[in-house]
Parts: sequence; C-alpha cells; structure tokens
Amino acid sequence: MSKSENQFMKASIVTIGDEILIGQIIDTNSAWIGQQLNKIGIEIHEIISVKDTMDGIRIGINQAAAVSDIVLMTGGLGPTKDDLTCEALADYFDVELLFNEALWTHIQGLFSQRGRSTTDLHKQQCYLPANVALLRNAMGTAPGMLIKSDGKMYVSMPGVPYEMKSIMTDHVLPLLANQSDISIVHKTIMTVGQGESVLSKEIDDIEATLPAHIKLAFLPSLGKVRIRLTGKGADEQALHDEIETFGQQIADRLARYVYGFDDIPFEQALGELCLAKGVTITTAESCTGGLVASKIVSIPGSSAYYSGSIVAYSYEMKESLLFVPHDLLIEHGAVSEEVVSAMLLGVLKQTGADVGVAISGIAGPGGGTPDKPVGTIWLACGNLKEQVTKRLLISKDRRMNIEYTSNVALNMVREFLLGRY
Amino acid sequence: MSKSENQFMKASIVTIGDEILIGQIIDTNSAWIGQQLNKIGIEIHEIISVKDTMDGIRIGINQAAAVSDIVLMTGGLGPTKDDLTCEALADYFDVELLFNEALWTHIQGLFSQRGRSTTDLHKQQCYLPANVALLRNAMGTAPGMLIKSDGKMYVSMPGVPYEMKSIMTDHVLPLLANQSDISIVHKTIMTVGQGESVLSKEIDDIEATLPAHIKLAFLPSLGKVRIRLTGKGADEQALHDEIETFGQQIADRLARYVYGFDDIPFEQALGELCLAKGVTITTAESCTGGLVASKIVSIPGSSAYYSGSIVAYSYEMKESLLFVPHDLLIEHGAVSEEVVSAMLLGVLKQTGADVGVAISGIAGPGGGTPDKPVGTIWLACGNLKEQVTKRLLISKDRRMNIEYTSNVALNMVREFLLGRY
Repeated sequence: MSKSENQFMKASIVTIGDEILIGQIIDTNSAWIGQQLNKIGIEIHEIISVKDTMDGIRIGINQAAAVSDIVLMTGGLGPTKDDLTCEALADYFDVELLFNEALWTHIQGLFSQRGRSTTDLHKQQCYLPANVALLRNAMGTAPGMLIKSDGKMYVSMPGVPYEMKSIMTDHVLPLLANQSDISIVHKTIMTVGQGESVLSKEIDDIEATLPAHIKLAFLPSLGKVRIRLTGKGADEQALHDEIETFGQQIADRLARYVYGFDDIPFEQALGELCLAKGVTITTAESCTGGLVASKIVSIPGSSAYYSGSIVAYSYEMKESLLFVPHDLLIEHGAVSEEVVSAMLLGVLKQTGADVGVAISGIAGPGGGTPDKPVGTIWLACGNLKEQVTKRLLISKDRRMNIEYTSNVALNMVREFLLGRY
Repeated sequence: MSKSENQFMKASIVTIGDEILIGQIIDTNSAWIGQQLNKIGIEIHEIISVKDTMDGIRIGINQAAAVSDIVLMTGGLGPTKDDLTCEALADYFDVELLFNEALWTHIQGLFSQRGRSTTDLHKQQCYLPANVALLRNAMGTAPGMLIKSDGKMYVSMPGVPYEMKSIMTDHVLPLLANQSDISIVHKTIMTVGQGESVLSKEIDDIEATLPAHIKLAFLPSLGKVRIRLTGKGADEQALHDEIETFGQQIADRLARYVYGFDDIPFEQALGELCLAKGVTITTAESCTGGLVASKIVSIPGSSAYYSGSIVAYSYEMKESLLFVPHDLLIEHGAVSEEVVSAMLLGVLKQTGADVGVAISGIAGPGGGTPDKPVGTIWLACGNLKEQVTKRLLISKDRRMNIEYTSNVALNMVREFLLGRY
C-alpha cells in the first residue's frame, strides 16, 4: 500500500442492508463517500449494495476486493440481531470474535455522558473480529474497523450517515490521502436549451483532441445537459490548467447554451444575471401553477430581483388578476399566443417587474383537443416594450410537462436578459 | 424462467455511469426499481454501480448474473461516445451490432412530432446487439432492450429516470409479474401531522399481534409518515385479507392523521376532499414562493377546486395584491400572525375562493433576527368568517423549510375542511 506500489488506488464501496435493496431508503452514503474519495484522487470502481445476510456480505466483499485495493463497507453494525457484519467479517477472514475493551470503555463513556446506562446488547456489540484495528466513532456506539489483509485495506463503518461521515473524516480520509499519488480533476459545463446529441456534434472536433487521460461525459436532465470533463494525472496543477483550457474551449463553442460551471443551480445563475443587469423578474402562471416562481425563490437572496407572481389557473383569474380581455379568451382559448402575451402584460403591470414570463398550456392528462393536444404549451417572455413567444409540443405526462415547461420558461427569461431574441 | 422452476425469482440491478461513482448524482433509479420489484414478489439481491467502461460493464453484468436470474441495467445508452452499453453487451454476448429499423422509425417519429430533425448520432444509436428484443421507449430515443440467455433475463434501459420508469412500467414489470409464485402484499397507511415515534407508540399493541410473515415499517418524510405493512405468502387472497384487517386497525387508531392509503399523493387526497365538500381553495404565499400552489396543480383535474394564487414576496406586493395594510406590515413585520391573517383575507377577496392558506416566513439562510430567527414561519388558514393561525420554528436549511412549510400549509387546509379546528 505504499505510494510507489500503488500509483492508481482503486476503491469500492459495499453497503449492507435490505432497506436499500427494497428502495425503502436511497443510498446517499455512497454518493458522499464517492465525492470525498474523488477529491483525494482515489477512484471508486464499484458500489455494491447487498442483503444483510452472511452470504450477501461475503459475496459483496469478494466482488469488491476482486476489483479494488480498498473496500469500504457501511451498515450492519447495530446492536440488534439483524446486524451481521462483525460475524460475516470474522467468517470471511477466518478469525475469532474477541471482546474489545477499548470499544466497551468508549460505549460506557458515551452512555454515562448522556446519563443513561448500557444494556447487555451493548456489551454484545463489543465482540469484534480479532484482526481489526478500532476506528473510534465519536458520534455513536457502533465501531469503525480497519483490516489490512493481502495488500488490501478493508474498512467497516456504521450505516447511520453522520456516524459514517465522522469516522471517514477522522480516520479513513487522512489515512487514504497519504496513499494516493494521482489527482482527479473535474470541470462541469452547465448547459440549457439544447439536446445532448446536438451539443455533442457541435464539440466533436474538441472532443477528438482530448488526450487519453481526459474523459468527456454528457449528463442530461429535463431541458438541461451537464457536460463533464474528468482528468487524471500526477501533477494536479498541470492537470487543472489543462482541464480549464478544454473546459473553456467547450464553453466558448457552446456559449449560447452555457449558464455556468460546476453544478451551479440554473436558478442561481439566473439570479446572478438579474443582479448584474439590475432587473427584477416576475411570472404569470397557469399550467405550471407557481412552480416557476418557487424555483426563483429557492435561491437565497432572490428578494433582490423578485417581488411576486400571479398564478391564474382559471379564465376568471386570467381576467381579474391579469387583465386578459374576456373576448381574447373566448376567441383564442386560454392556451394561445394572444392570451400568454396578455398575461405577460398583466403581470408586468401588477408587479411592476422589469421582465416577466407567462405560461399557459395543457399539462394533461385531460383537456386536450385535436387542435391543441395535451402537451401544447404557450409561453411569452419580455418587458412592456418587447415580447417573444414560444410554443412547445411535448409529452403526455403531466408532471414532466410542468417541470420541463418551468425550465424552458426560466431559460426564456435568461435569453431575453442576454438579448438573444 | 417458468413459475415451477423459480419459486423465488432473484434480480440484481447494474447502474452504469461514473456520475454515480463520483457522487455527482444520487442513484434514485435503483430505489425505485427496488420498490417496484418488491411489490411483485421479486427479491433484489444486489445493486451494483459500475464505471461506463467496457471492463466496468462486463464485470458488473458478470457479478450480477452470478447471484441472480434477472439482470436489470440502466445507463450508458445515450447517443454520445461515452455511452458504451450497446457495445459492451454485444461483446459480452459475443454478437454483432445490427442496425435496428424499428428503433430508427421510432426516433424519426419522435423528432418529426416535435418538428425537429435527426442527426447522424441518432442513426448511430440504432446499432443494437443482434440478440436483443426492442422494448419501446415512449419517452425518448434511447432503446430499452431485452436479452434472454442461458435461462437468465437481461434488460438494458436508459439512465434518465422518466425514460427508465416508462420502459419498466410498459414492458418489464408486466413481463416479470407473470414469473413469480410467491406473493408479496403491501398496505401503506399514509399519515400527516405527527412524528414517527408518537405514531409507533400509539399502535404498539397492534404491532405486537402481527404474525411473523407480516412486517411493519415506518417511512418518514417532511411532515408525513407512511406506515407500511408487508406480508409474504403463497395464498395471495388470504394474505390480502389478513393485511387489510391489520391495516384497518392501524388506520382506525390513527384516524386523525390518516389521509389515505397506498401511496396516494397527499395533494390528491386533499383534492378529493375539496370535491366532496364542494369547496374551492387558494393560497397567498411569501416564503414558499408558489410551491404550495404548484403542489395543488400537480393533480390532474385540480381546476375543479382551484382557480389561482398570489405570490407576494415583497412588502409592496403584500400591499398591492393582497391588500395588507401598510401600517400592519410596519408594525408587526411581514412574518407575523397579523400579516398572514391579512394576506389570507386578501387572497380570498382576490380569488373568490372558499378557503385559503397564507404563508410568510424566514426560510433562510439570511434574514433572521433575535426575535424571529431563521425558520420562523407564520401560517393562516380559513374562510372569510373563521381563521386559524400557526407558528412554526424549524431548521436552518432553506430548501427543507420551504418544502416542510408547504406540507404543513396543505395539511392546515385539510384539517380546516374536516372541521378539526
């Protein structure tokens, strides 16, 4: 495990517990561990979630050790009978379970601090595989354990997130940071308003010039694509500079779609743009029902550029709160270019905001007509002088339509502020 | 794969993509798949997350197939070069990649519907391993694929959650539901407004009478707790009756907190209550920024009991759109019982709704004072005659405060409609 032996340290995570397999909880521990190891240049090769049976744990350790130098386990360390990790480790390494005095002292200390007394179950919890070194758990009674065997390192931690994080931070990360010589550097370019395939085609030639140690990945979500560069190398500063250069090339090429870097939320980038331009924004929402406004407000400090919105779901509200003429609604229907334009003017007058976006559509599943099928959405964006409108024809799924439309609406505001229309 | 051969079907999930391993995204797909398979009596044995390299994918499939009859893969199917699943599958099963006309027709259809044209990359995406059956992806261009080999079943799906869910729902779950002999029956009691530990204590004695083949689990989220009974057995009808009896006992005991059964969304239960009572509802929102309204509108058919809302984030909007007296704001501050009460009256007048809820609070991280720390939220609920108010003192986390407050607000409407105040 010395630096010279292991230029590229490989790690795997084994999470133990049925609650993950049946989807009762989502495995956030592994994502956190992945982020931490990534920062110190250790690559996660696999994350394996297994049942908390003797067999499940044994197979998981085996599979992880087959592809990695470091096996990080979480879970199965509680005081109850369904917690089998200690037994499974003793079995796997063919050692005895021995009473660990240091752990017992630690547990007694924790309980006396809280003015509570221990039970037999806690004493039972102190029988650990004979080959472990104890990693003190500052946050609870379950032990952290380190085993070195056949040139590999095995760490077992509790599944309770704050206990796991405490053991990782206090013991495991410092230990591993000393062992890795390789740096991993990421740069993520955040884009909106264009699909993965078109973006990919536009940067084809840049991708072709990437050296073997830098990889490119596209991570799409509704209306947005994250483009991630990942580089590996011994010289962190050189790698960092190299990644920055490629990242900037890609960002320049895709400038129209780029709203930021490194996982900045879109709404935050939009907020910064509003502050930079010194404008306030607003929304008039029908089918999105306030979701666009709530996305704006999700960013701390949004009161500097946002003061309010009107959700006008019915014809009556479009008339009374947004001043949409009755005849316009009757003639064109609520889902029309004419009506969203009128909604936009109405909300600008009501709120005094500089720029707004108005949305009206048929989110589904009901309400479609041959002329205007489910998924027909009209948007209008602009100020009192200039307005742009857009029609979407999207899917049959209500939740997706609302979410996607909200992203499109906010991007219209961004493009309008950038003078892109 | 016939019923007689496989009383207990075992499945594993392989998720493909570095973004999970480096913790850039959290694997919610596997949790969802785990829940769905669990419902139809199929046990997940492992969830394995692997790198999107040829080696990573091959090892993942191998490990999954070693412990399971069914291997469900997600990810690595996009049109870009970093998507290697098709190539890896062809390599694993030692078959060629063939152009799939059905997929090409499907992709062209999707694009022409949206009035956009395909690129070469989309054509490239149509080369699939020769041994697959195509599973139509109603939500996108990436293919779902089914391979049967050596008595095992392999399914490959895109990693984009709504595309994966659509393929699972349309094709994979119906296929698998036919193959299992053991029934798993669930009954979930949906509660709101009380914590897990109190609920658990209230049904202690019922829990003690549960037979060994029926398990009880508490699944808390912000302001709500799902209480789930799970039974396993050969006689589905008998099991179903037994679970229903226990479920009803629990629901009767906890009646005050129960809003429905079996994962009905709270907003749907509230909508049904509005319809039953023949009332319309509205919201006046400050710190929640329209999130409460958007939750109401997330339910199809909500136009029958909802017509609009006002988001009044600034003092000015509270005055102009909600008629809150200027002096009241100056005297008590926007986050006060007096102001939320006035906001409620204002929105009832503006929208003509029967019942409303108004929310004003300090979501954080900034804006707190010694008197009104971050996490101080005032709510008012009622009609023009009767109103109730409530103050919350919650956490430091903006996102959590907004989400939790929205749930509390909607539950105030429910309790008001039920005459519980």
